[in-house]
Order: sequence, then C-alpha cells, then structure tokens
Amino acid sequence: MPGHDFLPTVAWRSGAAWIIDQTLLPAVFRRVAIRTPEAMRAAIRRLAVRGAPAIGCAAAYGAALGLGRPSPARGRAEPGVRVLLGRVLRAADLLAASRPTAVNLSWACGRMASAARRLAGEGVPPGAFRRGVLAEARAIHAEDLAMGARLARAGLPLVRARRGAAGRAVGVLTHCNAGRLASSGHGLALAPVYAAHAAGRPVEVWAGETRPLCQGSRLTAWELARAGVKVTVLCDGMAAQAMRAGSVDLVMVGADRVAANGDVANKVGTYGLAVLARHHGIPFYVVAPSSTLDPSCPDGAAIPIERRDGGEIRGFFGRVTVAAGAAVDNPAFDVTPAGLVTALVTDRGVVRRPDRAKMARLAGRRFPVDAPAPAPTI
Amino acid sequence: MPGHDFLPTVAWRSGAAWIIDQTLLPAVFRRVAIRTPEAMRAAIRRLAVRGAPAIGCAAAYGAALGLGRPSPARGRAEPGVRVLLGRVLRAADLLAASRPTAVNLSWACGRMASAARRLAGEGVPPGAFRRGVLAEARAIHAEDLAMGARLARAGLPLVRARRGAAGRAVGVLTHCNAGRLASSGHGLALAPVYAAHAAGRPVEVWAGETRPLCQGSRLTAWELARAGVKVTVLCDGMAAQAMRAGSVDLVMVGADRVAANGDVANKVGTYGLAVLARHHGIPFYVVAPSSTLDPSCPDGAAIPIERRDGGEIRGFFGRVTVAAGAAVDNPAFDVTPAGLVTALVTDRGVVRRPDRAKMARLAGRRFPVDAPAPAPTI
Repeated sequence: MPGHDFLPTVAWRSGAAWIIDQTLLPAVFRRVAIRTPEAMRAAIRRLAVRGAPAIGCAAAYGAALGLGRPSPARGRAEPGVRVLLGRVLRAADLLAASRPTAVNLSWACGRMASAARRLAGEGVPPGAFRRGVLAEARAIHAEDLAMGARLARAGLPLVRARRGAAGRAVGVLTHCNAGRLASSGHGLALAPVYAAHAAGRPVEVWAGETRPLCQGSRLTAWELARAGVKVTVLCDGMAAQAMRAGSVDLVMVGADRVAANGDVANKVGTYGLAVLARHHGIPFYVVAPSSTLDPSCPDGAAIPIERRDGGEIRGFFGRVTVAAGAAVDNPAFDVTPAGLVTALVTDRGVVRRPDRAKMARLAGRRFPVDAPAPAPTI
Repeated sequence: MPGHDFLPTVAWRSGAAWIIDQTLLPAVFRRVAIRTPEAMRAAIRRLAVRGAPAIGCAAAYGAALGLGRPSPARGRAEPGVRVLLGRVLRAADLLAASRPTAVNLSWACGRMASAARRLAGEGVPPGAFRRGVLAEARAIHAEDLAMGARLARAGLPLVRARRGAAGRAVGVLTHCNAGRLASSGHGLALAPVYAAHAAGRPVEVWAGETRPLCQGSRLTAWELARAGVKVTVLCDGMAAQAMRAGSVDLVMVGADRVAANGDVANKVGTYGLAVLARHHGIPFYVVAPSSTLDPSCPDGAAIPIERRDGGEIRGFFGRVTVAAGAAVDNPAFDVTPAGLVTALVTDRGVVRRPDRAKMARLAGRRFPVDAPAPAPTI
C-alpha cells in the first residue's frame, strides 16, 4: 500500500472529485474540487490533470458527477433512474471527447456508460443506481492503483540488478512525466524507482526537462523531491554527456502506444534517448500499462504522430523565444523501434527485446489484476 | 563581400562601437552605441554581444574606446601619448577579465595592448597614436571577417556535396548560435550555409533550440530568417526524429575548443547530436576558426567543462520550472570525441576524420589570412 508520501493525483471525497492542478506546479501545490462533468472536462482539456491513467480515473469520476447531488432542490422530487442514466451517458460522452489521443479516456468513459446501462437494465432504485455508478468509478480507480503496483513489482528487479559506481546510488534517467502525477498513485515508469526507494535501494533520478511543456522539470522533479527521492533536472540536450560521464545506469520511460511489433510511441525525445543508451551500452526500459498495447497497430510507422501548436515552442510561458520569420515543428511524440528497447515492462509481465511474436504472447495473457506476483518474463 | 543582408554584429562609427543587443532578440532588434570600455565590459558580461570572434572584435574596439574623445574638456590640454597608453592598457585589462572562457577575448585585448605599447615606443605624436590604436582594432575586425569568408569557402563544398531528397533543399541541422551574431559577419558553422544560399543552392536549416539559454531559437533562427534562409526551430529532444524522418542531410556545429587529438568542446547538446548523426549515417561537421585549436590540450578529458548557474534551468525568463527540492546540473559544454567528427572545417583547411597526427599538421600551417583559395584538405 502507498506510504505517507502517497500522492492523491485523483481522489473522491464528499461527493466531489479532487485533483491536483498540475498547471500550477511546481510553484503551487493546490488540490481543487471538481463538482460537475463540465468542470472535469475543462480540467482535462487545460492539462490540470494529465497522463493517460490519471485521465481515465478522472473521467470515470467525472461521469459519476453527472448524477448530481442526491438531495434535490426544494420542491423537486429525486429524479428517477431513467433521468440519472441520461445524465451519466451525457457526461460520459462529454468527457470522452475532451482530448483526442489518450486511450484510457475513451475506455473509462465507455466502461462508465456500460455500467450505468447495466444497472438501469437491472431495474435498481435510484439510490442503488447512484451507488453502483460511483462504485464503477471507484473500481476503475482501484484497478489503476493495482496496475501501478504491478508495474512497480515487475520493474523493481531491473533497478535492483543495476549497480551504481562505487558508493553511488543507481542512476535512472527518465523523460517527461510517467510518474504518480500521470497515474492514480504508484506511477508508471517511476513506479519501479519508488519501489526501489521504499525498499532501501539507493536510487537517484536524472529528469530530462522535456521541452516544450517541461513535464520533466515541472512535474517529475516535483513529485520525486516530494517523495524524498534524489532528483536532478537536466536540459534535454544534456542527457548524452550524463551517460558518457557514467551517471546513468539505466533509462526508464513511459509509453503512449506500443505497436504489435513492439515499436513504442512516447513523448518526443524518447527515441533520441534510446539511441544514446544503445551507444553507451545502457539498458533502455519502457514501462507501460497493458492498456497502451495496440495490437491493431502493426508497427511504429502506423502510429499517427500528433503535431501540436507551434506556440508551445515560440513562446515559453509568455516570453517570445523564436523569430517571427522562422518556422517551428512540434511533434508531440516520436517512435522508438523495438530493436532499441532492452525490455518492455507491463502489468502483464516483462518482455525482453520485444518483437512481434513476443508481443502477441503478451497480448494473449489475461489481465491478472490482483495476481500476487509478477507474470513471468517473456 | 557581404551582401545587403549582412549583419553588423560589431561596427565602428562616429567614434563609437555599435553592437546589436542580443539579449533583446528575437523580439527587438536594437543597435546600441558603446562609448566607454566600462560600457563594453558590461555589454560582454550580460551577453549583449557574445560568440568568441564577436567578443574579440568588440573588446578590441572597447580597448580603443579607452583613448577617449580627441577633443578634451574645455580648459584642458589634449593628453599626451603616455596618458593615452595608460588608458588603453587599463581598458584592455578591464575587458580581458569580463568573461573567463572566451579565448579570443584575452587574445584581442593582448594584441591591442601590444600595439599600443609598440606605437608609444616608436614615439609617435598623440594623433598618430590614436589612429594607430584604432587601426589595430579595425585590423582585428577585418581579419575576423576574412576568417569567416574562409570558413564559408572551406565548408561550401560539404553542403554542395549533399543532395536533399527529391525536390527538397539540403537540410542542415545546427545547434546553439555559431552564426553571424557570433562573429563579425560571415558566421562560423553557418558560414557555409550562407555561402550555399548565396550561390543559389537550396538549403534549409533545422535549428536546435539550445536550452537553457535558447541561442538556437532566439538567435540562429532570427539571423537566418532575416537573411531569407528557410529555418525551422526544433526543441533539442526533437533532433533524433528529424534525422530518422530524413529531414537532415548533414549536421554543422561550431566549437569552443578543439584539443590536440581532435576532440571538440562545444555547447552542451553537441555530443548527443554527434552520436545521433553517426547512428543515422549523417555527416557531422565541426566548423571553427583556427583560434579555437588548442594544441596544449591533449584531449577532450583535459578540457575543463564550465558548470553554469542552475538558475538558468530553474527559471525560464522569470518563470519557475523546477521544484525547489530538486537539484539541477548545468554543464555549459560537452565534449565530442574526434572519432564522431566526419570533418573539422577551419580557416586553415578541412581535416577529415581528425586525429592527433592530422591535427598536428593543421596546427603547423601558417595562417593564410588573405589566401584566395581554401587550404587543401588534410
């Protein structure tokens, strides 16, 4: 179970969903109560809550918020299940469309809608309907927590196996934020790091700043420092010299989508780190929930790469940094070929040197949500 | 000779040195008159003028500014040569200490001091002394211009030799600013690019942003766009995917110091680009004036790497981007081993696959300031 430093990226309390407003980090740590589906949609769109698993949980609670308060306005009767169902379905639709790329978002909204329809079909009374819908959101949240715990267990041996130079902690280089702030609690690529730290294994993290939106310096550095894990921020161009200097024992990053052959789409900058890791003989691990596996996508070339607004590069928090006459290119992701991945760490098990055959075996595994031990390595 | 778009990074006019205040770019293009050695020292320290060759020229004029105006205050006689010599030597000392690492700075100041001493020793009258000191500054400036022209001639064939994909310009990836703004005019790593553009060879530049100080997006993109060369800014972590996509035909970067074995120290991020270029089979060229060759430095391990203030990473133009509890590392330079350098392009000639023996041959060449053709390739 999470320790005292556990970060409630998403939480349900007193009839409201509480999130950390990540746009204010690292300067301000503020939790905000979200009380309507519309407010949750706005929070997701402006990246106040971000990271595929965290967005999934937030959207699930957001759909439940569609129920409204059980105590109706004076003079009005408690709405019936038919009305409540309509509200939940509308909320789920609204939330599913709030961002286009996060797989977990549409998945969680679809699951909330299915649960609501099933409950309505069972003819439960309004109170039980309300409890059932909220229970589904809580289940999604709990499963996400369990998924993170499994990633931590699966990845921990990879961190343990590395030995830092004499008297030094194991150095883990990461990129963007695949941490607690991106999930409901344990983290993704950082889950094994937190597990190693909790187990008393000296570990330190090199966090790439991750331009243009600086998720590495703003979020990863913040959550690791808060948890007492030593973290040092590097600009993205500094990773190579850190590897050459021997500071980096392994690279651990997340993934937005993993193709059927093991090619990995992740935040832009990841592919370069994979090449650099190979050049320096450093293991390159991708840690990702099985929800990011996409067997329908044959390889990395089939993964669409989102081009985001150039304004993210042209202006840095309001300061103009690019001449008006210059163009900018802003791909949000890049693709790392499976051949550069030392191992893919998932909640279904670890795949060493992923290829099409191994990925097919992984995809065939049932999702053992509450299995006590990690699935065997493929 | 420079064309109409020539950028007067440093100029002498009406008894003042004029520089472009580079701290205001790209938002504002402003030339400022510098009228005293103290003002020039302040401009160099705050990076209003930067880039080793540009700083050398600026410091030479700054030393000449020590002479003061030839028309003295009312009631005071024109100072004698002894007084003028003292002023120039004090100014040269002051300027030489304004920044620690730029080799050209101390070299230019030392040369101004020597010239002033020689003139004083020859017993010239005050007017001739003034003219002689200013002539030395102008000579340093003119030689820097000639050096840039030679870099352009030496590097042009390397750009010409590459063929962009069908119907596409030759794509040159660069890092930081080794352009006109860093020199007195033609540029350094960008000199061959400008030459190719002037010769009608379709060329486009991918400019790495170059965190933390963004010289790539702020300065390189600005000067290329101003000159009509197509330029696209990338965040530093995007270079790898640009190479993989086939957008980059060659990499051209500058150098701050080149060791006796050909190892190259340059702005941090350069080494990673060299590894990525090798991985993708893309030529990696270092373009540098011979003043950056340091035969006294045996190899890259002997080059001291300046660690700059972490505040450059923690705050981006005033916005806090790193959690207070996190550490930052801010090496200003990294070292690229000679083995990753396809060719070193200097004003003394081109060295393909530099090694200790070839570097020794290059160092032994006389500096042919006004030679009409490039020196042969080593």
